[in-house]
Amino acid sequence: MKIVVDMMGADLGVLPIIEGVSKALANKAFEPVLVGDAKQAKAFISKDLASKVEVIDCPDFIRMDEQATDALKRKESSIFVGMDILKNGADALVSAGHSGATMGLATLKLGRIRGVSRPALCTLMPSVGKRASLCLDVGANTDCKAEYLLDFAILGYEYAKSVLGYDSPTVGLLANGEEDSKGDSLTKEAFKLINQYPLFAPPKEGTPIFKGNVEGNDIFVNSVDVVVCDGFVGNIVLKTTEGVASAIGNIFKTTIKEHFSAKIGAFLLKEAFGMLKQKTDYAEYGGAPLLGVNKAVIISHGKSNARAIECAIYQAIKTKESGVAEKMARAFSHKTPTEPTASN
Amino acid sequence: MKIVVDMMGADLGVLPIIEGVSKALANKAFEPVLVGDAKQAKAFISKDLASKVEVIDCPDFIRMDEQATDALKRKESSIFVGMDILKNGADALVSAGHSGATMGLATLKLGRIRGVSRPALCTLMPSVGKRASLCLDVGANTDCKAEYLLDFAILGYEYAKSVLGYDSPTVGLLANGEEDSKGDSLTKEAFKLINQYPLFAPPKEGTPIFKGNVEGNDIFVNSVDVVVCDGFVGNIVLKTTEGVASAIGNIFKTTIKEHFSAKIGAFLLKEAFGMLKQKTDYAEYGGAPLLGVNKAVIISHGKSNARAIECAIYQAIKTKESGVAEKMARAFSHKTPTEPTASN
Repeated sequence: MKIVVDMMGADLGVLPIIEGVSKALANKAFEPVLVGDAKQAKAFISKDLASKVEVIDCPDFIRMDEQATDALKRKESSIFVGMDILKNGADALVSAGHSGATMGLATLKLGRIRGVSRPALCTLMPSVGKRASLCLDVGANTDCKAEYLLDFAILGYEYAKSVLGYDSPTVGLLANGEEDSKGDSLTKEAFKLINQYPLFAPPKEGTPIFKGNVEGNDIFVNSVDVVVCDGFVGNIVLKTTEGVASAIGNIFKTTIKEHFSAKIGAFLLKEAFGMLKQKTDYAEYGGAPLLGVNKAVIISHGKSNARAIECAIYQAIKTKESGVAEKMARAFSHKTPTEPTASN
Repeated sequence: MKIVVDMMGADLGVLPIIEGVSKALANKAFEPVLVGDAKQAKAFISKDLASKVEVIDCPDFIRMDEQATDALKRKESSIFVGMDILKNGADALVSAGHSGATMGLATLKLGRIRGVSRPALCTLMPSVGKRASLCLDVGANTDCKAEYLLDFAILGYEYAKSVLGYDSPTVGLLANGEEDSKGDSLTKEAFKLINQYPLFAPPKEGTPIFKGNVEGNDIFVNSVDVVVCDGFVGNIVLKTTEGVASAIGNIFKTTIKEHFSAKIGAFLLKEAFGMLKQKTDYAEYGGAPLLGVNKAVIISHGKSNARAIECAIYQAIKTKESGVAEKMARAFSHKTPTEPTASN
């Protein structure tokens, strides 16, 4: 399996990317194609690793402060070159660079799965439930139509089932109350579309897949496995979650430091935060898959460490092996596309 | 000062409401008018308290599962009667009952401040910053126009300045990124309106009041004092915040219980959670004011304890004393109403 890894544009530079690839190679068999500045990379690639990776030299990359639309024209950039390699035969791509650029190029070059109106960025949320809920869209689409939300529901459901291996995943629509009457005009319309779609239609017996509206707090107790929202709201939910977790962490740290000796304090912090870190560490979740395009694209956090890149590669391998793209195409076959979609 | 307190519809019954009134009376001089089931209340009203309060018997109330629109017709209900008393001479109202009913009746009976398109529900968010940010709208208006968001910015700014006593409060627009180019179509339009409004226009020297777009995590570090969003997004932010805080609390409790003896564990929990509770306890914040109507209306949490009701009463007194309604009316004078607004 050939996996393209973009070495450029991440906050911590190329080192953690190369380390992540090296760690993943120790556990899984795959052929990494590293795209980016070969000169920079050379310093970090051991002789042993060099024999296992292909490096494509393309030092240009899209900076975080550049417009995503610029990426569509920058043919020499690492993500442009990488996406071409993916299109022409590789199996998956991992990038911790400019996420807008990666999403734009993926949609343009790989095309959407037939029936999908818009690809969506999908992320796993920390949970005290037995499974983590996945949330989509968390940023790919700012202004959404109801039809997009239906598509996100289908994409999320298939991903939860095929890639995460969730047994009988459930789906909810994020709203301002759990009653069916709640929602804004967008989610009210989406509610109807989802409820009528053959995959989600309430069954004659057994429990339905679509659980209707869910609220913000439902995300963290796994009330449903897939939480559907537009990309504007999803981004705000994601940032709010990070903000609350970080604020609480700070309050705890201050309190513990004030009340306990340095030694006991350090021990408490390690114990109390260990579990929290395990539950909320984005590194363990890998990255956010872009769902709805014709190949596996994993978008990693800009601050990704080696472990995050390693996990993103495992996720890419699992996505490819699961055959989820084919399953998604089948799930969308009940849908008459209302607008032209790219096929491939 | 005459303050109407709705005794009905709260999750914990009439007792904490009456206790809250009693506690507030010990610290502040005001005339409470208690509306609700006099028979139920009688059991909890001491002889001493009875001499200081007026009780208006109206046992009917709007249940949490009833529609807010029903409240507009239920003339015998405690909130209907209470809102009439407020309209006809009282100074403020506090209710922990059906919030939709309270909002609907307040708008209908008290009328909007001239120039206000929609009243907004406003809440203080926990913060690690030196001040807490206030967030509005958190649920009064589900589908918003850009003009409403401008109004929320004005209302929030005046409340922060006059009632909270914030020196030079700043305002931000909640979006999916902090760059000016970010936002959905609604917030992009609102951005322009706010930036052009005389109150917020960038000054020739000094720092501007309107800081542009802010992200979800900015709320908890007080990047700005007033965070503006539509009521659908605001409700989701509020519930997400509660959900994350509760999930982290659970993870900590489990970890501490697993690693320490019951006695040490209890001590740790008390210490570590004490500070957190102080920072996040909604009881200390009182309630959510409904901004934009012609009198002070404080909507308390359905689960309010006596302390929450006591604080809500202080907030009502402060709101009235600050003369904020008059200041808001002045702040809206730069605005040409685009639709008829109630005056009073």
